[in-house]
Amino acid sequence: MPIKSKPVTRPRKKARPDYRRKIGQPPGALIHLGDIKTPSPAITLFEYDRTGFKECRFASVAESRSFEPAHDVVWLNVYGLQQPEVMSEIGRRFALHPLTLEDILNTHQRPKLDDYGSYLFFVARAWRTAEDSGELVSDQVSIVLGERFVLTFQERPGGLFDPIRERLRQGSGPARERGPDYLAYSLLDAVVDRYFNVLESLGGQIDQLEDTIDQPRAAHLITAINRLKHDTRELRRTVWPLREVITSLQRVDERFVKRSTDIYLRDVYDHIVQVVESLDSLRDATGDLLDLHISLDSQRLNTEVRALTVVSMLFMPATLISGIFGMNFQTMPWLSLPNGFWFALSLMLGIASIMGLIFWRRQWLQNS
Amino acid sequence: MPIKSKPVTRPRKKARPDYRRKIGQPPGALIHLGDIKTPSPAITLFEYDRTGFKECRFASVAESRSFEPAHDVVWLNVYGLQQPEVMSEIGRRFALHPLTLEDILNTHQRPKLDDYGSYLFFVARAWRTAEDSGELVSDQVSIVLGERFVLTFQERPGGLFDPIRERLRQGSGPARERGPDYLAYSLLDAVVDRYFNVLESLGGQIDQLEDTIDQPRAAHLITAINRLKHDTRELRRTVWPLREVITSLQRVDERFVKRSTDIYLRDVYDHIVQVVESLDSLRDATGDLLDLHISLDSQRLNTEVRALTVVSMLFMPATLISGIFGMNFQTMPWLSLPNGFWFALSLMLGIASIMGLIFWRRQWLQNS
Amino acid sequence: MPIKSKPVTRPRKKARPDYRRKIGQPPGALIHLGDIKTPSPAITLFEYDRTGFKECRFASVAESRSFEPAHDVVWLNVYGLQQPEVMSEIGRRFALHPLTLEDILNTHQRPKLDDYGSYLFFVARAWRTAEDSGELVSDQVSIVLGERFVLTFQERPGGLFDPIRERLRQGSGPARERGPDYLAYSLLDAVVDRYFNVLESLGGQIDQLEDTIDQPRAAHLITAINRLKHDTRELRRTVWPLREVITSLQRVDERFVKRSTDIYLRDVYDHIVQVVESLDSLRDATGDLLDLHISLDSQRLNTEVRALTVVSMLFMPATLISGIFGMNFQTMPWLSLPNGFWFALSLMLGIASIMGLIFWRRQWLQNS
Amino acid sequence: MPIKSKPVTRPRKKARPDYRRKIGQPPGALIHLGDIKTPSPAITLFEYDRTGFKECRFASVAESRSFEPAHDVVWLNVYGLQQPEVMSEIGRRFALHPLTLEDILNTHQRPKLDDYGSYLFFVARAWRTAEDSGELVSDQVSIVLGERFVLTFQERPGGLFDPIRERLRQGSGPARERGPDYLAYSLLDAVVDRYFNVLESLGGQIDQLEDTIDQPRAAHLITAINRLKHDTRELRRTVWPLREVITSLQRVDERFVKRSTDIYLRDVYDHIVQVVESLDSLRDATGDLLDLHISLDSQRLNTEVRALTVVSMLFMPATLISGIFGMNFQTMPWLSLPNGFWFALSLMLGIASIMGLIFWRRQWLQNS
Amino acid sequence: MPIKSKPVTRPRKKARPDYRRKIGQPPGALIHLGDIKTPSPAITLFEYDRTGFKECRFASVAESRSFEPAHDVVWLNVYGLQQPEVMSEIGRRFALHPLTLEDILNTHQRPKLDDYGSYLFFVARAWRTAEDSGELVSDQVSIVLGERFVLTFQERPGGLFDPIRERLRQGSGPARERGPDYLAYSLLDAVVDRYFNVLESLGGQIDQLEDTIDQPRAAHLITAINRLKHDTRELRRTVWPLREVITSLQRVDERFVKRSTDIYLRDVYDHIVQVVESLDSLRDATGDLLDLHISLDSQRLNTEVRALTVVSMLFMPATLISGIFGMNFQTMPWLSLPNGFWFALSLMLGIASIMGLIFWRRQWLQNS
Ligand SMILES: [Mg+2]
Ligand SMILES: [Mg+2]
Ligand SMILES: [Mg+2]
Ligand SMILES: [Mg+2]
Ligand SMILES: [Mg+2]
Ligand SMILES: [Mg+2]
Ligand SMILES: [Mg+2]
Ligand SMILES: [Mg+2]
Ligand SMILES: [Mg+2]
Ligand SMILES: [Mg+2]
Ligand SMILES: [Mg+2]
Ligand SMILES: [Mg+2]
Ligand SMILES: [Mg+2]
Ligand SMILES: [Mg+2]
Ligand SMILES: [Mg+2]
Ligand SMILES: [Mg+2]
Ligand SMILES: [Mg+2]
Ligand SMILES: [Mg+2]
Ligand SMILES: [Mg+2]
Ligand SMILES: [Mg+2]
Ligand SMILES: [Mg+2]
Ligand SMILES: [Mg+2]
Ligand SMILES: [Mg+2]
Ligand SMILES: [Mg+2]
Ligand SMILES: [Mg+2]
Ligand SMILES: [Mg+2]
Ligand SMILES: [Mg+2]
Ligand SMILES: [Mg+2]
Ligand SMILES: [Mg+2]
Ligand SMILES: [Mg+2]
Ligand SMILES: [Mg+2]
Repeated sequence: MPIKSKPVTRPRKKARPDYRRKIGQPPGALIHLGDIKTPSPAITLFEYDRTGFKECRFASVAESRSFEPAHDVVWLNVYGLQQPEVMSEIGRRFALHPLTLEDILNTHQRPKLDDYGSYLFFVARAWRTAEDSGELVSDQVSIVLGERFVLTFQERPGGLFDPIRERLRQGSGPARERGPDYLAYSLLDAVVDRYFNVLESLGGQIDQLEDTIDQPRAAHLITAINRLKHDTRELRRTVWPLREVITSLQRVDERFVKRSTDIYLRDVYDHIVQVVESLDSLRDATGDLLDLHISLDSQRLNTEVRALTVVSMLFMPATLISGIFGMNFQTMPWLSLPNGFWFALSLMLGIASIMGLIFWRRQWLQNS
Repeated sequence: MPIKSKPVTRPRKKARPDYRRKIGQPPGALIHLGDIKTPSPAITLFEYDRTGFKECRFASVAESRSFEPAHDVVWLNVYGLQQPEVMSEIGRRFALHPLTLEDILNTHQRPKLDDYGSYLFFVARAWRTAEDSGELVSDQVSIVLGERFVLTFQERPGGLFDPIRERLRQGSGPARERGPDYLAYSLLDAVVDRYFNVLESLGGQIDQLEDTIDQPRAAHLITAINRLKHDTRELRRTVWPLREVITSLQRVDERFVKRSTDIYLRDVYDHIVQVVESLDSLRDATGDLLDLHISLDSQRLNTEVRALTVVSMLFMPATLISGIFGMNFQTMPWLSLPNGFWFALSLMLGIASIMGLIFWRRQWLQNS
Repeated sequence: MPIKSKPVTRPRKKARPDYRRKIGQPPGALIHLGDIKTPSPAITLFEYDRTGFKECRFASVAESRSFEPAHDVVWLNVYGLQQPEVMSEIGRRFALHPLTLEDILNTHQRPKLDDYGSYLFFVARAWRTAEDSGELVSDQVSIVLGERFVLTFQERPGGLFDPIRERLRQGSGPARERGPDYLAYSLLDAVVDRYFNVLESLGGQIDQLEDTIDQPRAAHLITAINRLKHDTRELRRTVWPLREVITSLQRVDERFVKRSTDIYLRDVYDHIVQVVESLDSLRDATGDLLDLHISLDSQRLNTEVRALTVVSMLFMPATLISGIFGMNFQTMPWLSLPNGFWFALSLMLGIASIMGLIFWRRQWLQNS
Repeated sequence: MPIKSKPVTRPRKKARPDYRRKIGQPPGALIHLGDIKTPSPAITLFEYDRTGFKECRFASVAESRSFEPAHDVVWLNVYGLQQPEVMSEIGRRFALHPLTLEDILNTHQRPKLDDYGSYLFFVARAWRTAEDSGELVSDQVSIVLGERFVLTFQERPGGLFDPIRERLRQGSGPARERGPDYLAYSLLDAVVDRYFNVLESLGGQIDQLEDTIDQPRAAHLITAINRLKHDTRELRRTVWPLREVITSLQRVDERFVKRSTDIYLRDVYDHIVQVVESLDSLRDATGDLLDLHISLDSQRLNTEVRALTVVSMLFMPATLISGIFGMNFQTMPWLSLPNGFWFALSLMLGIASIMGLIFWRRQWLQNS
Repeated sequence: MPIKSKPVTRPRKKARPDYRRKIGQPPGALIHLGDIKTPSPAITLFEYDRTGFKECRFASVAESRSFEPAHDVVWLNVYGLQQPEVMSEIGRRFALHPLTLEDILNTHQRPKLDDYGSYLFFVARAWRTAEDSGELVSDQVSIVLGERFVLTFQERPGGLFDPIRERLRQGSGPARERGPDYLAYSLLDAVVDRYFNVLESLGGQIDQLEDTIDQPRAAHLITAINRLKHDTRELRRTVWPLREVITSLQRVDERFVKRSTDIYLRDVYDHIVQVVESLDSLRDATGDLLDLHISLDSQRLNTEVRALTVVSMLFMPATLISGIFGMNFQTMPWLSLPNGFWFALSLMLGIASIMGLIFWRRQWLQNS
């Protein structure tokens, strides 16, 4: 009977940002606050308009310096944020405010939209299920939307924007015909589409838990439900403020977002509300599941204890009778009868049977 | 004592949409996200005004192409959404935005109203109790309201709008005299009327649960209450946003909804608020019911265990006395008396009786 | 030990409206949705102004047709709603919208105010404690306020407006001097005054429950607290929206409510807020009471079980000693001593006494 | 083991207003709804401005009739509300609306501000700890603020406004130099200052409870915590609406409150928010305390029951061994050995010791 | 088995302000309400602009009187608030309102912003972990922002603003180039940066608790979780209103805060929201942790009790058999067989083994 269940019941550790390195620094200091997730930064550039499309990839910052855009819309994507010189070069090139660069590097931003006058800066959080551990992991996606350019910054390559790149390459649909605002919409849409993937993974987990909810003595079940509750909550915390980002985008100056793009933003908005509602459903379902498991488990344990108590009572009259016929009185009935022993045994059995019958009919011997 | 109660305690599986097919698709891609609920689409058309009424039914899209309306108001109803070509044909004919078509096909929309300039698009969820299983099932009802037409899209035929069709055929009341806005109101009213049916079914279930709330050891009761809680919650989630749809309809351009229709919309609004309040009542009642059942059940179990403990105590003094007279001392009182055995037995019985009397008066032997 | 407590623990059935008769009907269909509470409708009419007062009572609708008012303000009161022809006659006479009549007949309206342009229609719910069963019962009070008339519709006569009638008859105070708006205020004030009666009844019930809160094994207590909780909740649900009705009345056109009446409406508003706050207090108090009862009850039961366990331990050493001296060893101490038996008995008693003392000092024998 | 803990666990009775006397009365009827707290009313009058100060006290209403004010600001204070003729005389003199007088007499008003055009009427609730019982008691303070006068009505003398009187007498600070609005502010400030006293008393109670939170079997603790919870809630209910009163005072016409007084009102506002936050802290702390006590108590009881169960197990093998050697077989080992008895006893002790050791190491014998 | 766990389970005492000294005082009375945290006040002065920088330290108020500023921006910092004459001197010099001075001295202010016309006054709460006890301690930071000066008042020196002083001395970055508004922003930023330190400390505590969550019988765990809950709550209470302070600062007159500083204030705002969200996460996590611990602990205890009950049942048949063969019947089977004793013993062992096997397979002997 060893008590060694620690591994299952210990909740998963969370990575918490190390804010200490930041304290006492002047505003705008470029210190990367986040885990280093990629060995070296990779910079890719797409430029396009109705007339054409060009794609290039820079090995270093130096290489990118000579670049001059030939098309109307420029999309620069950066993977990996650990080299401050890359960031400050981009900052100089696109005239970004130091606070923007700081927010890009500090990858624990809450989703938000900041209007810096000459560009919009917004942040979203991309979630996915890790292939190895099955755990939820998240990355910050920072987007700068100018009048003619879009900059995106991600912590590591994840294929999140690959379908958009493909559509730009093929030039199918309105992809190349519309401006940077439509590209920004497509990026947000890609982030939100991933949430549905995560929802499915969480839904699958809850289905699995529902199948084993009446398992006895399942400490791991309680822990799993708590983990699910926690994941749902964390996800909701980064999805909910994205709603405001979308709403704000529909209200910014038409220099950045054309009114004809609003209907598309409304569609993303719908999806976010759907995600949040599904998360609320999941949260309620996990809460109910926990209550249900605790109720069922305690009910089972209690009926088991009662069944045991009842069984132990069956022995009492028999033990008493054996004690009585073991007394040393000189004159005692039955002792000298040839079948006295068997009479006594029958008496024991008889009483136990009657009691057992009564208990059975009261359903006290059934333990669940 | 087998532990095999799985079937009763396992909560019902929910159908969750398979969003994976949608990820990476450009906006407006026509993929039907929903269960296929009908073998082939059916298209019916009503056209009417004060002067007359005509009704026709199209077997295929091709057949409908030659149709030219002869009356002021056109109502096109489509059952079954699995053929993209039907949808895109209708989209072309009525100049619907690709995002509208997408929302019609993705039947997991939250109730909402979108103003597309040349038409309004709104979505409601119709609920009913399945005849076979008694479970709650829901379908998305998509409505497009133009200046002269109403389009309705349903996942399968359910007779929801039959009373409206009948009133149009008979021309009784203001049915044919008013415009598409009054028709749209009638459709929403029909959806909301059905909610009262579902409320009654839920109310009946709760009445049944109340009758059996003090049943001992009822794991199925806990599961049933949780199911009811879940259904109430799901229903509330799709009814609540419909309130906003109605409110928005009262504020749209008079091209779409005449101000004289507002008083009717207010009536539907009243009904929705009534439904939501009843759902809140049901939710509180189920919550109380669950608490009540758990309280009563635990109270009963505890008093049963105490009664058993008390009964087992009655045997203790008797067993001790039998042990005492079974000791092998050379000199012991009563042993040689002719009635010593009966004295000992009387002592046992006497002590047990006194104890039993005390316990009885303390009400410790009553087990509920 | 019989399990027959069903009657006390089964919660009271609620009357739920039978909405099925209404489904599929066109808007404005006059079907009485509510219990029939009075054998036949009774119509009374008051007309008054500064110059005089007249009161009459109509046995049938036909009789009322010839009536022509001679004073400025007309107040028509109807008891009993089961005759559609009475309702449609009144509707024609006062030019009421079909939806107004429908709302009057469907006596499950939530309190609300509708502005129909030529009159205001508002609904309140009157509560009282049934004399026979002591249960809370409620009736819908529908009020139509025109520029020169007030119509009131009640499900059955209850004496609710008798003090107002008396004041009109006596002509004391401003009763006859002010217009229909002051009459409407007086009617609402009468409805709200009754709430204080109900509050007192609920308060009395809670006082009674507080006196018996530490009663052991009281399933009926849990049920009674739940019933109180439910009543408080239902009452609150119909009082809260009345607040909005009053607020709206202060904002309607001066044709219907003169600004000099506002101060009186504000007074009723105050009373409603007071009622709602008292209901919140009652709800919190019942919640606490339930928690308190469950805590105390479980504490008592647990200490009782511990006391029993402790008592049963007192027998163990004695039983063991009796067993030891009952062993059949050839050489055993004490057996041949003349007082050996009494030594053994003293040993048993001594050990039990010491244990009892220890348990007593730990307060393990006290069972509450 | 008697069950007589009723006195400690029965919650304190609350005085509830007897609204029945009010029902059916016309609006403005002067019936004193509240406990009579003082034998006869006492009326004091202060009049002052920059130039001087005068204080007088009237034994009866008649006496006050001849009074004519000689200074700019008049402050009339009334203790005791049971004589309607005093109230109606004051009402006539200062032209108060009947509804104002009614609200002064019905001392169960919620804090509120009513603008009657020629004066403002507001109500606050003063709380203090009763010296004898230590219970919280409250009185209604009604204040009428005119352009040149302030009227205050209290249920009984409590020294609440004595510091203000003293400052007026001494003429120190801005007391005499500012108008009735500053006086009204000072009165509200005095009421709010008293709340901090009550907060300290509640804080002291919670400190005391925290010291005894791990006391076993403490039904009185649960009751005391519930009482504290109730007091905190009641206090909060009358403090929260006072916030709105202050906010409204900052928005009324400058005839009544000069804008230079706003900064003082903002200070009182700050204090009210501080009181409410402290009450929220207290409420959370009491909630946690209750949960903590129940957790600790149930944990202790459960470990005690386990310890008892464990101890009872120590006897089982010994009892079995004694039974085995008490069997009557003709051939049994050890029986004829001279030290057989001691071998048996050693076996019993040895097994019990090993079991005891195992249980001790598992910490099953420690009962907390 | 002693019950002496008081030290661990008694919650930590909180310092509550002694408001009694303040009651009855006129508004603006300078009484220091707070613990005296520093032996004597220390006054330091920084003055700077683009052209230069000067720093000086005054030993007494007298010394500071002769000071005349030579640069545009003056920053006066005061540590220690116990000398009213220092405060009133500063008040005179900078024309502060008595209510401002009162709020500075009463160090229990809720974070807030007051606009006094000629200056802004705002209050924040600085938190840190005490080095000795590891407990959270807080100080009030009062800031007065004039058109050309900033005054800061702290209860004791804590190095909070040292990085800002260093940046001013070095003249690096925009520190000296911008006005008092940027300095005020830097001060608030320094306060908020410290919150992240505290968050890390709380996060570390929760990680530690998570590691020991499945420890049996851990009363200290429950207390620790409750303490953490309490700290989180208190912290949140002083961080949340700071959000409003920042929002208000973005809306004040441009005399005090230039619009170019807004983007910096928005950055602090982001950090505050991040802190509040992290606190919410911590609160949810502690709540879950408490529930998890109680669930696991109760589950373990229950399974232990069941295991003990099961083990005790193994002895019952054996004890009965020994009693049966100890009966004194003249004719009994087996008694005279040479191996009868061993047959009986085998029977006992056999039955116990079979029962043990059954219990083992039901997993009733495993106790966790
Ligand atoms: Mg965050
Ligand atoms: Mg976040
Ligand atoms: Mg969509
Ligand atoms: Mg959508
Ligand atoms: Mg759910
Ligand atoms: Mg739940
Ligand atoms: Mg949805
Ligand atoms: Mg929904
Ligand atoms: Mg209606
Ligand atoms: Mg209910
Ligand atoms: Mg409940
Ligand atoms: Mg209604
Ligand atoms: Mg209702
Ligand atoms: Mg209602
Ligand atoms: Mg009043
Ligand atoms: Mg009132
Ligand atoms: Mg209360
Ligand atoms: Mg409670
Ligand atoms: Mg009140
Ligand atoms: Mg109140
Ligand atoms: Mg202040
Ligand atoms: Mg303050
Ligand atoms: Mg607290
Ligand atoms: Mg709590
Ligand atoms: Mg505070
Ligand atoms: Mg707050
Ligand atoms: Mg605070
Ligand atoms: Mg930032
Ligand atoms: Mg930030
Ligand atoms: Mg968390
Ligand atoms: Mg929780």
